[in-house]
Amino acid sequence: MGKTGGIDLGGTKIQAAVMDENHTAIGSARCPTPASEGPEATAAAMAKMLRDAASAAGVEVSELDGVGIGTPGEMEGDGVVANVVNIVDWKDPFPLAATVGEALGGVEVKVGNDVDVATWGEFKLGAGQPFDSVLGVFWGTGVGGGIVLNGELWGGRGSAGEIGHMVVEIDGRKCGCGRRGCLEAYAGRRSMEAHAKHLVEKGHKTKLFEIAEKKGKDHVTSGVIASALKKHDRMAANLLEEALQMLAVTMASAGNLLDVDAIVLGGGMGTRFGPVYLEELKTLMRPHEFAVEPPQVVVAGLGDLGGAVGASLLIDATTATPAAR
Amino acid sequence: MGKTGGIDLGGTKIQAAVMDENHTAIGSARCPTPASEGPEATAAAMAKMLRDAASAAGVEVSELDGVGIGTPGEMEGDGVVANVVNIVDWKDPFPLAATVGEALGGVEVKVGNDVDVATWGEFKLGAGQPFDSVLGVFWGTGVGGGIVLNGELWGGRGSAGEIGHMVVEIDGRKCGCGRRGCLEAYAGRRSMEAHAKHLVEKGHKTKLFEIAEKKGKDHVTSGVIASALKKHDRMAANLLEEALQMLAVTMASAGNLLDVDAIVLGGGMGTRFGPVYLEELKTLMRPHEFAVEPPQVVVAGLGDLGGAVGASLLIDATTATPAAR
Repeated sequence: MGKTGGIDLGGTKIQAAVMDENHTAIGSARCPTPASEGPEATAAAMAKMLRDAASAAGVEVSELDGVGIGTPGEMEGDGVVANVVNIVDWKDPFPLAATVGEALGGVEVKVGNDVDVATWGEFKLGAGQPFDSVLGVFWGTGVGGGIVLNGELWGGRGSAGEIGHMVVEIDGRKCGCGRRGCLEAYAGRRSMEAHAKHLVEKGHKTKLFEIAEKKGKDHVTSGVIASALKKHDRMAANLLEEALQMLAVTMASAGNLLDVDAIVLGGGMGTRFGPVYLEELKTLMRPHEFAVEPPQVVVAGLGDLGGAVGASLLIDATTATPAAR
Repeated sequence: MGKTGGIDLGGTKIQAAVMDENHTAIGSARCPTPASEGPEATAAAMAKMLRDAASAAGVEVSELDGVGIGTPGEMEGDGVVANVVNIVDWKDPFPLAATVGEALGGVEVKVGNDVDVATWGEFKLGAGQPFDSVLGVFWGTGVGGGIVLNGELWGGRGSAGEIGHMVVEIDGRKCGCGRRGCLEAYAGRRSMEAHAKHLVEKGHKTKLFEIAEKKGKDHVTSGVIASALKKHDRMAANLLEEALQMLAVTMASAGNLLDVDAIVLGGGMGTRFGPVYLEELKTLMRPHEFAVEPPQVVVAGLGDLGGAVGASLLIDATTATPAAR
C-alpha cells in the first residue's frame, strides 16, 4: 500500500489530505465549499484542494494509489452522487468520482458517504480503535451519525445513522430538513446561526455576527462561537448550552437503543467544543442513560481532518472499505 | 427436530406453549405472574403452565426436545437470571433453568432475554420473515425492543434494544425505571394505569377501574382498556392516543437511526391494538421519518403467544439461537 488522498466534502468547507503508507496525513488543504456554484465548481475546488494537499506533502498526485471522497447525498454507484441538498443544482445525479478523477489526471477516485467514511476512519485509526462497536456523532454544520457494530459498518438500507434527525422535542424547532424538533434543529451549526439571527430580529443582543464579520467569515463558524464565548456573549453561551443538552439527550437515547461500546464525537463543532465540554456532556447524558454501564463517550481522535483521512481508507485494500459505492 | 416447549415470563402473565416439529403451537396455557411471591413461586408457576400446555397438546413433557424460556432480567450464564425488577426478591442470581428443569422431570431448559427471543421468533416465524433487518417493539406492561440486523440479533453489550427508555419528552413523566420522559412512561400499560389512577385522584372520571373490577382483573389490562374504549371512555381514549403518539415519535426516531427494513409491533398491547390502530400509528410516524422510504411497520404475526414460540427456538438446533445464555 502506498500513499493515498482523501477529500471531505462538508457543508461549510472542503478539506483534502494526502496520507503516507501509515495513513498519517502528511499534507492538507482546505477552502470554503462553493455551495452556491453547483456540483461542477465544487468538484473543481475538490480537485484543487487535493493538488494543494499533495503539493504541501511534496508528493505528485500521479504517485497516489488513489483518492477517496466522503460526500453527503445519495450514492448511485460508480461514483455518481445525487441529492446533495447543501449545494445548489445538485439534485440530479452527478459523476463526482469521474469528474474529480479527470481533473486529477486520471488517478482512481472512489466515493463514500461522508459520515460513514468518517466513522470508519475513527474506528480504524482514531478514537474508536479500542472498541468493537461505535456510534460516530459528527457535530458540525449539521449533525450526522455513523454506526459500526461488531467491526462492520451498519448502513441500513442506505440511510442509517441519522441521529441528527431523531426527534428530541415533539413539534419543536423547525429543522433544515423540513421536519420539526430534530436534534439538528438545536445543535447543527447552521440551525444555531439561523436561530441567532431570529433572536437578533426579535431584539436580542449578541456579538456573534460582529465577530464573524471581523474574522471575514460568511457564517457563524465554530471559531466565531468560540470567540464569542471568550467575550462572555450570553446568546452564544445559551445556544451552545442548548446544543449540548439536546446532543446529550439524543446520544443517551441512541445509546439506550444500540448499547454500543462507545460514542465518538467528531465534526467541526465536536472537535472544537468536545474536548472542553466532554465532562459536561457526559453529566447531561447521565440522567437519560438506561444501562448500568452506558457507552463510553470519547472525542474524535483524527481531529477536523478525520473526514479526509477516513475517505482515504476507501482506497486502502488492506482495510475493508464498506462505504465505497 | 422434535417437539419443543416455550415459556414467556411477562410482567403481567406467564404464557407457555408446546410446539410441533414445524414450530406451530399445538397447546398453550397461561396464568398471572405471581410477582409478589418471588422467583421460586414464579419458577413453579412456569413449570406448571408448561405441563398444562403439554397436557393441552396431548404430549408428555418427557417427549420434548427441551424447553426455552424468555425472561426479563440479567442473564448470568448457565440459565441463571438476576435483577428481574418486576418480581419481588429477585435481585440476586436465581438458577431459573435448573429450577424449572427439575420441576419438569429433568428436561433440558435454556434461558434467553424475553424481548430478544420474541424478536427472533417474529424474524424466523412471524411478521419479520420477509425482511433482513427488523426492529421488534414489544408494547405491553412495559415497552421492550429487539434488533435483528442482516439476519443476526444485535444485543449490544447485553442491553441493546431499550426503545422503551429512549427519551420522548425531556423532563417528562416519571418512568418506572426512575428516569423521566421515557417512552415507557407514556405507552407502557403499567404507566398508563398509574397515570389513570393519578388522574382519578385529581377528580377526573373514568370507567377503567370499574371495568377491571367487573372483569375480575387486578390491573387495567389491554382488554380492560379495549372495553373502556367501546364504552367511549374519554380517559381511556386519551391515554391510548397519547401512547400511540409517543410510540410513533420514538419508532420514527429509532427508524431514522437504524434504517431497518421493518418495525414489528408486538406485545400484549401491540397485538391487541396494533391491528386496529396500525394506519393511525403510521400516520403519526410520518412527520418524523427522515428516509424517503421509511421502514415498513407490521403487526407481530405470532400473536400474544409469540414470546413463548420465540423462546422455544432456543432449543431448535436448526435455527441459530443467539439468545441462549
